[in-house]
Amino acid sequence: VTQRLEAFSDGVFAIAITLLVLELKVPRGAGDGLGHALARQWPSYASYAVSFLVIGIIWVNHHAIFDHVDRIDRTLLFLNLALLGSVSVIPFPTALLAEYLREGGRASHVAAAVYAASMTAMGLGFGGIWLYATRHGFVALSPEQIRMVTRRFLLGNPFYALSIGLAFVSAYAVLAIAAVLALYYAVETGGGMRHRRRE
Amino acid sequence: VTQRLEAFSDGVFAIAITLLVLELKVPRGAGDGLGHALARQWPSYASYAVSFLVIGIIWVNHHAIFDHVDRIDRTLLFLNLALLGSVSVIPFPTALLAEYLREGGRASHVAAAVYAASMTAMGLGFGGIWLYATRHGFVALSPEQIRMVTRRFLLGNPFYALSIGLAFVSAYAVLAIAAVLALYYAVETGGGMRHRRRE
Amino acid sequence: VTQRLEAFSDGVFAIAITLLVLELKVPRGAGDGLGHALARQWPSYASYAVSFLVIGIIWVNHHAIFDHVDRIDRTLLFLNLALLGSVSVIPFPTALLAEYLREGGRASHVAAAVYAASMTAMGLGFGGIWLYATRHGFVALSPEQIRMVTRRFLLGNPFYALSIGLAFVSAYAVLAIAAVLALYYAVETGGGMRHRRRE
Amino acid sequence: VTQRLEAFSDGVFAIAITLLVLELKVPRGAGDGLGHALARQWPSYASYAVSFLVIGIIWVNHHAIFDHVDRIDRTLLFLNLALLGSVSVIPFPTALLAEYLREGGRASHVAAAVYAASMTAMGLGFGGIWLYATRHGFVALSPEQIRMVTRRFLLGNPFYALSIGLAFVSAYAVLAIAAVLALYYAVETGGGMRHRRRE
Repeated sequence: VTQRLEAFSDGVFAIAITLLVLELKVPRGAGDGLGHALARQWPSYASYAVSFLVIGIIWVNHHAIFDHVDRIDRTLLFLNLALLGSVSVIPFPTALLAEYLREGGRASHVAAAVYAASMTAMGLGFGGIWLYATRHGFVALSPEQIRMVTRRFLLGNPFYALSIGLAFVSAYAVLAIAAVLALYYAVETGGGMRHRRRE
Repeated sequence: VTQRLEAFSDGVFAIAITLLVLELKVPRGAGDGLGHALARQWPSYASYAVSFLVIGIIWVNHHAIFDHVDRIDRTLLFLNLALLGSVSVIPFPTALLAEYLREGGRASHVAAAVYAASMTAMGLGFGGIWLYATRHGFVALSPEQIRMVTRRFLLGNPFYALSIGLAFVSAYAVLAIAAVLALYYAVETGGGMRHRRRE
Repeated sequence: VTQRLEAFSDGVFAIAITLLVLELKVPRGAGDGLGHALARQWPSYASYAVSFLVIGIIWVNHHAIFDHVDRIDRTLLFLNLALLGSVSVIPFPTALLAEYLREGGRASHVAAAVYAASMTAMGLGFGGIWLYATRHGFVALSPEQIRMVTRRFLLGNPFYALSIGLAFVSAYAVLAIAAVLALYYAVETGGGMRHRRRE
Repeated sequence: VTQRLEAFSDGVFAIAITLLVLELKVPRGAGDGLGHALARQWPSYASYAVSFLVIGIIWVNHHAIFDHVDRIDRTLLFLNLALLGSVSVIPFPTALLAEYLREGGRASHVAAAVYAASMTAMGLGFGGIWLYATRHGFVALSPEQIRMVTRRFLLGNPFYALSIGLAFVSAYAVLAIAAVLALYYAVETGGGMRHRRRE
């Protein structure tokens, strides 16, 4: 049922995750200082790595959800489109944070707040799909399993939201929170969700 | 029958929708004025959001059509290619409108007219597929259902076409019309078209 | 058998055809002269249109071939990779031709020759797949059908090759030949190849 | 079982391989010297060709592995994500090497070392998937076949690693080693791995 939705979503995930590389800029005319010029770009690599991880993990979890979704409707298609919108925009805040992270001061805080807001939007988009799908009985799991997974999926949202405010204290903290949440979602297998073999 | 056509189309939709993000430019050297520099870019975000919505909704409707198409021929492949051409070009008028919307005067009108023309081309491409497919009996729906969906699919075209002229009155109006039509197509479920479960 | 090969190929076709749009540049600071600035860019639109058509038609024909291919081996995978290489590079000669077409003189001839060489490479890549697949009995068509399709598929190659030389006479002629060949392949249905319904 | 993993992976491979073309820059304002300007860019073409070949061959081998994988788990998904990360980053070291290869001296050595490190990461990512999948019995091959394929898959790794050091002797050597290893993997069919027909 969800085959074409998944294919389109996979396409957007795959493209967004691969477009991130365009934010890594080759230093021009660095001459013998190329090593240093590359090292100075570390915020680009850090932002790249965190955003890659975030998109990758969303993809894995999207995968996990739709393995259990037996029905879709038009609303779910649009909720999914909203999630894809929040995912496909990620290269922009990533580049913004990479550009201003080292600058410190106000600019780095603004850039980090935009990045945090983008993560929050993505978390809300993901949570929205899950809540809509479970409340309308589209998800073939027991109520107990759904409760467990819901707790887990919604856990990240307050942290993302808090990190918007935290951005004005420390831009680095925003990147760290995004990385930690991504790793948490990577490791925590969600109990109720076993990988379902497609027949 | 339409599996590979859909896969290729999904690919083009997914890429075009994700490439839109490349038009969002990181302000360089904004320093403490980063917040303002980002705010001044609002036409980029508005154009991005509208174009994202437009491509997303075309995708949903493309999906809906080809769920009901039982046969394809070479002509339909090329009509589909024409639609994909009009879709994959959208990042260009989007960037154009983002660049000139705030400038006002003649430049903003020209940019908006190009944007409107691009929407019109897409509307015609979409309508062309639908008319060709229904007239050749490729669509497994009753005549009554087809009539209802046809009315709905062709409804946007005169508005898109009118917005080319309207562009010379107000560039903002073009963006507003595109947004309203996209939302209309998002909400209006087309009556005759139920989501068909793939067996 | 060829499912994943087709999926990967469709991905490359879809991306290459969509990346072409990045060569369409928004004129900066054109002010009231935006209409003229856009009009002056017509070589970009012409190159875009021809390359879009070329890639689109290759996709349709690739589709047509692999509908009839019952077996693949490692060599065919690499021949296909060579074709994909020649396709995915097309945005570069397209941008080159767009940049130098109007300049006239030596630069326009060199740019057109590179474009023609790129078309030739693609034609050879396509012909190579077809000849290899038919000679090794991978194609489920009668000898008569294969002969007809072979004639047709190889027909473009001498024209592409000749257009490399012709580039030094007229850059416009190269673009015209590529467009005419694409339209020929679009219209000419190849007789022996009927669209085969996938079961 | 591995259908969506393969689709997502194919997407990332296809996009990364196609994004490489963005590193080929059109020389601006070259006038009559366009031929020379294009010729001077040969390191771009060489890096493009080698990286295209490398990604293409990884794709073929990824294909070959997952034809034999009967089961996946969350760890394998993340190992695959790590591989995709190392693949999707390749356009960056490719552009870096293209920019600095001809410059000689320290900058070319640093650029080549980064390129070699990126190849090494990819080799490790690929080897990691294979080792994990075989040790957990996810691969439907005999122990003898697995031993043969393992030897072959791991063979490249010491060479990639050595080429990091070699980069400081000769940047060209790094490109040559990557090309030779890619061709080796292209030609060497791996004995134990026959192309398995999907039912």
